[in-house]
Amino acid sequence: MATADRRVAILGLGLIGGSLLRCLAAGGATVIGYDADPASIEAARAAGCDATGDPAELRAPDVVVIATPLPAVAAMLDLTAAIQPAPIVTDVVSVKAPVARLASDRAPRLRYVGGHPMAGTEHSGFAAAQPGLFAGAPWVLCLDEDTEIDAWLTVAAMATAADARVVPATSDRHDAAVATISHVPHLLAAALSTSAAADPLALALAAGSFRDATRVMQTRPDLVAAMCAGNTAAVRAALGDVVRRLDELDASLPNAARLEATFARAHAVRTAWPASERTASSHLEVTGPTLRSDLIALGESGGWVESVDSVSLTVVSTA
Amino acid sequence: MATADRRVAILGLGLIGGSLLRCLAAGGATVIGYDADPASIEAARAAGCDATGDPAELRAPDVVVIATPLPAVAAMLDLTAAIQPAPIVTDVVSVKAPVARLASDRAPRLRYVGGHPMAGTEHSGFAAAQPGLFAGAPWVLCLDEDTEIDAWLTVAAMATAADARVVPATSDRHDAAVATISHVPHLLAAALSTSAAADPLALALAAGSFRDATRVMQTRPDLVAAMCAGNTAAVRAALGDVVRRLDELDASLPNAARLEATFARAHAVRTAWPASERTASSHLEVTGPTLRSDLIALGESGGWVESVDSVSLTVVSTA
Repeated sequence: MATADRRVAILGLGLIGGSLLRCLAAGGATVIGYDADPASIEAARAAGCDATGDPAELRAPDVVVIATPLPAVAAMLDLTAAIQPAPIVTDVVSVKAPVARLASDRAPRLRYVGGHPMAGTEHSGFAAAQPGLFAGAPWVLCLDEDTEIDAWLTVAAMATAADARVVPATSDRHDAAVATISHVPHLLAAALSTSAAADPLALALAAGSFRDATRVMQTRPDLVAAMCAGNTAAVRAALGDVVRRLDELDASLPNAARLEATFARAHAVRTAWPASERTASSHLEVTGPTLRSDLIALGESGGWVESVDSVSLTVVSTA
Repeated sequence: MATADRRVAILGLGLIGGSLLRCLAAGGATVIGYDADPASIEAARAAGCDATGDPAELRAPDVVVIATPLPAVAAMLDLTAAIQPAPIVTDVVSVKAPVARLASDRAPRLRYVGGHPMAGTEHSGFAAAQPGLFAGAPWVLCLDEDTEIDAWLTVAAMATAADARVVPATSDRHDAAVATISHVPHLLAAALSTSAAADPLALALAAGSFRDATRVMQTRPDLVAAMCAGNTAAVRAALGDVVRRLDELDASLPNAARLEATFARAHAVRTAWPASERTASSHLEVTGPTLRSDLIALGESGGWVESVDSVSLTVVSTA
């Protein structure tokens, strides 16, 4: 189960792929990067990593990490499907149900485990890659009904070797969660920005509240649109819940006591987040008969996997 | 018109009042601070400022600045109404229409100019006061139908002497603008925080988007509730506009091109904000027959007053 025993190939050497390559290489793993761009290969080699532009040089990896944006995933699945013997394959795309369907349609022979490391920055490319990018960051690994648990544990061992917090979730639950904490905040920021733009006086008075509430609108509009459109059903449900809560707040005006009760709940949530200070550690046996449901329950309760060895997983629960 | 000619009394020596006292004193103005709390008086004196706990020692100020929270404004208006001759009075409360009504009901003899410096921090009290707090910050001064223009110009000269950007607006327009850029962001943050709290998995995955979108929920809930409840009509209108835009975004899903058009508008707004780099300076005569409407038009277009002397105002328009 230890990563050092597994050969890893990383397809795509941007921020995420490049950081993972550097991190695993620094940890002594047998890992090679692939990119179609000679400059990325050159940069990876200059950083002391093994990298190639020729798929034939990937040398029978046990695990393939597809670290490209969604539009390039199909081509990378085709490339991976040609590898013998069939490797475990994972990806880093920010929506999971559509990629799971793509993998199932396009490369059913591969053992696919959907992944999503929550470790982006506003920078991109290998030049921005850093071995410590995943330290302490959540990394969702999807555990759906058709996910092989051994494949899942192998990818989890790799992600925890990068010091990530591996969060088990079904693809649908992942997509619902990121709709709430990432996609809906972009919609709120867009609505607030365009509303304020209709009133130059308001924009002139805007300060810290507006600045923070709209910061994510500095991101490239095409990327935000693709992200939200790619997760339509979950975004609609999450947005509906937020709008229902806004309607309740509206109905609470001008009753300061009723408003304060809601603000007090929100204050408690926000000041207790993130949960790192209120955790307890325990173990799950890798051969446990309820391992799959135990892992799903762990993720649902806000917990994560800290490390994986051949016998057990060390897991962290939030208090 | 120059502030050095006017005697200023500041009632309340917290962050805003204390900073203004220090700033005007450093500029050579005749200024005295009043506070009921002996510790605040002591701190002000230790900072080299004139301060008292006895209203009789306020020595016939030309301008009184009520720098207390809303609940204490009525008592400060009563205290000010006893001063002979009747001074100009301004305040620093974050909603303006309710304070204007209070001043009109309680102290009709005073020449009232509603004010709101947009210069708060998360700290409070004289210990946090700093003379440079207002440098470059918007400071709304209300110009309603019954506001005396001479009184307005006198307060504007004082605020620009503190290096603030004086933004002219009616009380109603001020309240609408701050509803959009301050109060609604708090409601969005509350709705998002409580929605995410219903899903521990979502909270465990939350990162930068969630952090910034909910930052204002770290503020004391009672203060946020009082702020929103005190501006109910304007908050309802502003929230209605934002929710309408959220409905439009929802209807645009899953059409990435339609979504991108909205995100592109929001991106343009956010990256062009704040406007400091795209400005042009000009002058308005203090005796101009259209001064009042010129000032209102300036504020509506996102501009501000940079300085005031006995002949003219230097104003800045955004490009």
